Amino acid sequence: MKRRAFIGGAVAATTFTMSATAILAQEDPLPSWNDGVAKRRIFDFVARTTTDGSADFVPVPERIATFDNDGTLWTEQPMYFQTIFALDRIKATIDRHPEWHTMEPFRSVLADDRPQLAAMGEKAMLQIVAATHAGLTTEAFREAVIEWLVTARHPRFHRPYTDLVYQPMLELLAFLRSRRFKTFIVSGGGIEFMRPWTERVYGIPPEQVVGSSGVTKFVMAAPDRPVLMKETGVEFVDNGPGKAEGINRFIGRRPVLAFGNSDGDQQMLEWTAAGAGARFMALVHHTDAVREYAYDRSSPVGRLDKAWDEAVRRDWLVVDMKADWKVIYPFHLR
Amino acid sequence: MKRRAFIGGAVAATTFTMSATAILAQEDPLPSWNDGVAKRRIFDFVARTTTDGSADFVPVPERIATFDNDGTLWTEQPMYFQTIFALDRIKATIDRHPEWHTMEPFRSVLADDRPQLAAMGEKAMLQIVAATHAGLTTEAFREAVIEWLVTARHPRFHRPYTDLVYQPMLELLAFLRSRRFKTFIVSGGGIEFMRPWTERVYGIPPEQVVGSSGVTKFVMAAPDRPVLMKETGVEFVDNGPGKAEGINRFIGRRPVLAFGNSDGDQQMLEWTAAGAGARFMALVHHTDAVREYAYDRSSPVGRLDKAWDEAVRRDWLVVDMKADWKVIYPFHLR
Repeated sequence: MKRRAFIGGAVAATTFTMSATAILAQEDPLPSWNDGVAKRRIFDFVARTTTDGSADFVPVPERIATFDNDGTLWTEQPMYFQTIFALDRIKATIDRHPEWHTMEPFRSVLADDRPQLAAMGEKAMLQIVAATHAGLTTEAFREAVIEWLVTARHPRFHRPYTDLVYQPMLELLAFLRSRRFKTFIVSGGGIEFMRPWTERVYGIPPEQVVGSSGVTKFVMAAPDRPVLMKETGVEFVDNGPGKAEGINRFIGRRPVLAFGNSDGDQQMLEWTAAGAGARFMALVHHTDAVREYAYDRSSPVGRLDKAWDEAVRRDWLVVDMKADWKVIYPFHLR
Repeated sequence: MKRRAFIGGAVAATTFTMSATAILAQEDPLPSWNDGVAKRRIFDFVARTTTDGSADFVPVPERIATFDNDGTLWTEQPMYFQTIFALDRIKATIDRHPEWHTMEPFRSVLADDRPQLAAMGEKAMLQIVAATHAGLTTEAFREAVIEWLVTARHPRFHRPYTDLVYQPMLELLAFLRSRRFKTFIVSGGGIEFMRPWTERVYGIPPEQVVGSSGVTKFVMAAPDRPVLMKETGVEFVDNGPGKAEGINRFIGRRPVLAFGNSDGDQQMLEWTAAGAGARFMALVHHTDAVREYAYDRSSPVGRLDKAWDEAVRRDWLVVDMKADWKVIYPFHLR
């Protein structure tokens, strides 16, 4: 039942449209943003690009807005949620893999031996991702993601991971859609890890999710019963320069607005900025250790260093989470 | 001016919406289809899947319709138009490549030596594609495609290639969109060859075009001036099993309707058919040598053999172009 409710939600998620004038005249479309430069710059950009006759008017088909996911739309600490999913998945499927009890890096995962895992580095992580993201059909993987989201809880907030999305960004996504922007996710995360829930949670349908992907193969499981098998090979890494390449490949149109939070988003913002006409580039700066997390130049996850310098130099918006956001999570509203 | 008009058209292309009841009651949305089984089956499927309360009702977000391009939406004879573009492009850029005068396969292209070209086979074709589709920016490639479409003429019909789209399929695309289907192209052709014109010609925006692609690389051409360079490597072949894989990767949702015309579309139709609920699979059979072309099992381009047998066995719609289509091209209407 819980799972059915989870899936059913996707169907209910529809974009809403209303008169833009009505929105601005009657109610604040960004109530979770404090009044300040960030909010003013967003309003100014949207007004300039969507008002008929404005010098910066952008025709509807070109209103492409791209958002990073981890750290921009939802939390990415203490590590990427997809990494936590992979670690949890090792434990959830141990019955089918008794050999993992004595085999690294799986033994350390089962023992929650984080120092040992960290010491084994990226190669261990790739083994864990391969063991949890390959060798099954896309349908089975989707089911695993949904099962995890229904049952898993964040170690600090003790809530489902999809509760840890940023209320101000949900409002921004809805505001942009109400002004006929098409909102896309462009994430370094796995495309098949995101698609089962982005429509329900963000109102962003699967076909507007760009991300990293592994190789999948079309296989006839039985007569007239094709499946897509997830294999271990990496097909595309949608991060850093890959975000500009991924935008070109999946969307085929340059965004007029791009929002990120880390150095992995730098090239997406550069690519967006290099287009003609009005552009909006922004970064979320994680400054709120009390309500969320505070990290930037030296963080192993979501490092914000070079992109920050470039944003300052080029006057891109840097959102100060602590100062600019009235609330962080939807559950703060209650 | 011509080029500006060409690009400007894309912006004007918008989807139209009207009451579905009004369409069926007041006018025929498929006037270029003869009355018959094909037309009836289309109407029946759309009515069943879009009428509230119908057992086969499909929620709007899941109304995904995918169309092959070459031979399904526009002509693919005497060879794929993208191949003709590549051959023309060799001639158009010979001034920058004097070495081609004496170097195969370019020499044969310049001499219009088709038998020699055919004898050199696929490797020669790959060299020609690499020479014309790589080593330039995505922007420069887009310009080259637009320039070609404005100036080139089909050898038999003496018209721009974008005139050679099928009027009955344009009507079907518009009809489906009016019933809130989202229409996608899923083609073996190059994604960057199609995107400059699909919105203007089909009403299908770039982000709804899935196709084959080469490797592109993000490069800083100058400070704050990034470009995407097209390289020679093949990144993805969106044909045969690749069509099912491409649908999964780009769209992330299984189509409820898929339309193709050749064996390269077989797996797209199989993947569509394997979903739960109402499904519509169809093939265009080229039977009209007078108004277009007639070819199937033995054609080197657009071979229809195994997919045809499967369509007959599984009762998928096979459109008989000669019998089912009142007109072929939009210019036949005048």
